[in-house]
Order: sequence, then C-alpha cells, then structure tokens
Amino acid sequence: MTEMVSDIGEFGLIKRIQTLIEKQGIRSSKVVLGLGDDTASVLTRPGYELLVTCDCLVENRHYLPGRIHPFDLGRRAVSVNISDIGAMGGVPSFALISLGLKPELPVSSIEDMYKGFLKELNPFEIPIIGGNITKVQDNTFIDITILGEVEKGRAVRRSTAKPGDLILVTGFPGRAAAGLYILIHSPFSDQLMQQPLVKAYNTPGHRAREARAIALKQMAAAMIDISDGFLGDLFHICEESKVGAVLNKEKIPLSQDLREFCLKHDKDPYDMFFQDSDDYEMIMTCRPENLNSIKKAVSDISDVPVAEVGRITGNRNEITMIEHDGKEIKLKTKGWDHFAKE
Amino acid sequence: MTEMVSDIGEFGLIKRIQTLIEKQGIRSSKVVLGLGDDTASVLTRPGYELLVTCDCLVENRHYLPGRIHPFDLGRRAVSVNISDIGAMGGVPSFALISLGLKPELPVSSIEDMYKGFLKELNPFEIPIIGGNITKVQDNTFIDITILGEVEKGRAVRRSTAKPGDLILVTGFPGRAAAGLYILIHSPFSDQLMQQPLVKAYNTPGHRAREARAIALKQMAAAMIDISDGFLGDLFHICEESKVGAVLNKEKIPLSQDLREFCLKHDKDPYDMFFQDSDDYEMIMTCRPENLNSIKKAVSDISDVPVAEVGRITGNRNEITMIEHDGKEIKLKTKGWDHFAKE
Repeated sequence: MTEMVSDIGEFGLIKRIQTLIEKQGIRSSKVVLGLGDDTASVLTRPGYELLVTCDCLVENRHYLPGRIHPFDLGRRAVSVNISDIGAMGGVPSFALISLGLKPELPVSSIEDMYKGFLKELNPFEIPIIGGNITKVQDNTFIDITILGEVEKGRAVRRSTAKPGDLILVTGFPGRAAAGLYILIHSPFSDQLMQQPLVKAYNTPGHRAREARAIALKQMAAAMIDISDGFLGDLFHICEESKVGAVLNKEKIPLSQDLREFCLKHDKDPYDMFFQDSDDYEMIMTCRPENLNSIKKAVSDISDVPVAEVGRITGNRNEITMIEHDGKEIKLKTKGWDHFAKE
Repeated sequence: MTEMVSDIGEFGLIKRIQTLIEKQGIRSSKVVLGLGDDTASVLTRPGYELLVTCDCLVENRHYLPGRIHPFDLGRRAVSVNISDIGAMGGVPSFALISLGLKPELPVSSIEDMYKGFLKELNPFEIPIIGGNITKVQDNTFIDITILGEVEKGRAVRRSTAKPGDLILVTGFPGRAAAGLYILIHSPFSDQLMQQPLVKAYNTPGHRAREARAIALKQMAAAMIDISDGFLGDLFHICEESKVGAVLNKEKIPLSQDLREFCLKHDKDPYDMFFQDSDDYEMIMTCRPENLNSIKKAVSDISDVPVAEVGRITGNRNEITMIEHDGKEIKLKTKGWDHFAKE
C-alpha cells in the first residue's frame, strides 16, 4: 500500500525529510544552526550585501499536477529562485522551503520533490536551512526563499538602464510557452515529458552562472530574468529605469524547434517570444562598447547564446519594434497578471 | 461597489500595496534595495549571526476566515514570526511577505491586512523588503519570512537544556486554546472578538522583547516559543537536548479567565495549558542560580509574569508531573500534528 503523508503525520514527514537532507544535502560551515530550532542561524560575509528573494509555485496556477514529475517540480521551484539571485549578479547561498501539502499525497512524491530541490541546490552548495510544512485542502503550494550575496555596490538592478544601452537576451525565449501549450493540448505520456519544448516549461534552466560572470566584469547596466514574458520583463526595466526600448524584429532569436512548433500549430513565433513565456533567460542592457566583453564572459563558461535585440531609448515606457520592412510599430506590454479577468 | 482584487489585477494590487508600505512602513538605511527588483538587498552587521525563519498561516487551518478581522490576521501572521526570532534571543530586522489570494477578495481587506503587518513590524523598525503575490482557488495563505540578528555565539537554542535546569514559562498558556473554542462555538459578533480569551487566540502577543532581554544577560540555557502547546514545545526541548522534565502541578500558572472558562465549559484547565494551545509565550530553562536575574530582566521591561514550573532531568524524552498529592504521573506528549488522522 502506498504510504501517504497522513500515515506518518507532520512530525513523521519532517523527520523523513530531515534524514533525506542530511544524507543528500550540502553541509556548510556557514550554517551555525540549520533545521530543528526556532530559526536558522547563518554567517554572512563582510563586504557583501545580503540578497533575499522568495517565489511561490501554486498547483494549477504555476504548474500542472500530473503533468510534471515531483522531481522536476522540485527542480523548477528552486531554479526560478536561483534565477532571481542570478539576475542581481549574485551567488545563492541558503534556502528555506515552505510547503502547503494535501494529506493524501504519497510520501515518496514529497521525497522525490526534495530530491529535485537538492538536484538544483547542490551544484551551488546551497544548504536547506529552514522552512515549514502545513496542510492545505486544495492546491499544493511551494514557497521558496533563497538568500544570496553580492559584493557591496555591485548588484545589477532593473533601474539602471540608460538611453543608448544595447538590449541583450540569452537563449531562446518563447520555448516555455510552446511547451505549456503542448502539455495542455496533448494526451499525457512519459514521452511527452521528454520533448525539449515541454522540458523548457517544466524544468527551465536558469542563467545564474552566466549572469554572475557578467556581473563580475561590471559590464551590464541593468538585468532581469524572464518570468513575465520577454516584453513584460523588458517593460519592468523600462518602468524602473524610466526609459523606453526599440527592438529589431530581425534580431529576435527564435529557436528552430519553436519555429517548427508555430508552423504546425498556426502560431506566430514572435507572439510566443514576447508574451507570457516564463523561460528564465536573462535580459540585460549594456553600453555598446561592453557588448563583446559580455559575450566573451558568457562564452567562457557556457554555450548559451547572447543576442543583441535592440536599444534603450529615452521614450519612457514605450517599446517599439522595427519590422523586417523597416516600419516601426508600437508593442503592447501585458505580462502575466494572475488576477486578470479571464 | 466593493473593489475586488480581480478589478485592479496583480500589478494594480502590488502598486497599491507598495504605496501603502511607502507611506506607513519603516525606511531603513540597512536596505540597499527593497521592493521592486529581482531580489531585495540588505546590509548585515559584522559580529552578528543572521537569523531566518518563515511561518505560514493557511485559511481554515491556522485561522478562521470571517472570525478574524484582516487587520488582526496581519498582526497575528507577523507576531508568530517575530516570536521565533525572539525565541533565539535575537532582534528581528527585515520581513518578506508572500500571499496566496483569492481574486474575489476586497482590495480593502488586503490593505487592512497590510496595516496589521505594519502595526507589528513598525515598533521593531522592520521594513518589508520583498515577497510575492499569487492567485489561489481555495484557501488563502500568508507565508512570512523574517530575518533577524543575534550576537555571534549568543543564540539561545532548544538543544542546550541540562539536567538540573529550572523550567520557566512566561504568561498564562492555555488561553489561546480557550479562545479558539469560544470562536468555534459562539455566534459571531464584534463583541466576541473583544473577549480577552478570543484575542489571545486571534492576536497573540509575543515575548520577543522579554526573550531578548534574557538573552542579553546570557542567563537562559534553552528557549522555545509555544506554538505546539506547552507540552509539545517542552518536548521539543527535551528531544533536542536529550533530556527529560518533571513539572509541579501546583506551580502551573493558570489565569483566572481560563479557570472560569473551564468551569463554565466543563474542561480541565491543565489540559488547556498542556495541549494544542498556540500562545506564543516562551518556555526557557536556566541554572537555578540564574532564576532571579531572569525574573528581573523581564520585570525591568514588562509586567509579564515568569513562573518556575519544574526541572530538567536526565530521563531522556520523559515528561512527568507531580500531582497535588505528591504522586508522579507520566504525561503524554502530542503537540500539533497537521496531518494526523482525525
């Protein structure tokens, strides 16, 4: 019989998770007190700012239960937070994990989820130092807090883009949106989960290492990771920096598999690229003379492409695109609004 | 017409909340970057450990919707986290607030909840530096992360109680359980919410200041706040410290209003004191020679009583009680288990 959370109770579950973390998780001399007291206690480094972010995944809202393995869900939940620390040019250092769980979940699926957390935490030597587990009736949620650090004064913000900056983007945004479409519209199978576009949605990579390499060179003016779609997040930079942007359609990086998907499903690949695709790629801006240094900083450590797609302008909050025929059109920013009426 | 969250959308709601926080919240020079970027960035102090805790309130589980005002709910959610930092002997410094909200909530109730957060955060000069808001279908949740600090090596743990230590408790545990009983079994009214026992449940005080005063004198051996009932939390100390405890029934501090409640409802006040009452009072242990210094440290700053209720023993995980007639009985620890079968 499958062992359920309700069979072993809250304290039983916590013990099981602690054992798993002790065996497979990272131990760090920076942790004075980890799990098991009223709070965790850790050491921070002089000369560094402390970065803090938390991001929440809710069942049926940020992921589709039964259409993602618990292991992959754990990976995804950690990745989106590591991505945020990366987008500041920082290094992640500690994690806290809060779960709202239904009692009828199998214990093994919770353990698999933790293995997914560790799969993404361990390469960065991030220990899990705290969190809590509570019972929910309906939608499971996973709320992760990640702490990190960055050299004092070196955090790369959203608010520091300047007119004349180039706009760069890593990888091929839009693929996650295509993956989500496939997940919703196809009969479920294990094979489906292996499709590269589906994987781009379920277990997005992040560009924390690439962003850190760029930040170390102090070459980026502004940076953000893509969780509200390319246009939504570029708009966040524009709002915070009080600038605008002009994009060149011909320079938008569209992957071959996204183009093929769009042909097959009669979709516009540019729509996929611009709207509601949470790819966790990075958008950054830089002075034109820094372009090559940034590309080199990234190519030194990974094969993720960096594309120059446009330029920051002084036209506050206005994002336009130069079409293939040279015409300039205004783009409507929308981004992902959880509460928008559907 | 009442303005609903769905009327103004996620970004509209975030802007509204940011405005409220800017107007009524704390500004701190320790915050390099607050709300509005990929992460927050703050400065930590050399010579201090960083404390981190997060605790989650779920509708229908940790509070009863319609039986607590949003303002009080906000106070409660922050208090339980400040209590945890206090239980380490630390000082709270920064807050992150994650909410899972239903779209059909009135915007004003969210604003009231934030006013409740600020009511508890502002006296400690704690700025809200981050968080996130997401949509849920069913139960609203509030997940709060609080960061704090304590001088290096000075955190008061659960694991450091020693045989021969006295066991002390602040205030009058059991009152929150009585308040919850009243809330569940009485017709709802605004008057009901003003009953002291009901307030003890809905808006528990915390003993963070008292605990900090004790920690500064380095007089407590172990400390924990009561969120799993007195016995549940004393058992946490016993487990972590590998000790046991013997309690004196005649020394258990029962408030007059709890006694009256129990008479009226045919309940045993000791059951209320020991079991499942989340009062956020402090349990601590100390060497007998430190008792008076601890009492003085507390009485210097507040009128919260500190009662000596028993002694730590070497009988690992065994908690007994000496009855009025001198007989010693074994107590069964249970604590609050969210997933226990009902």
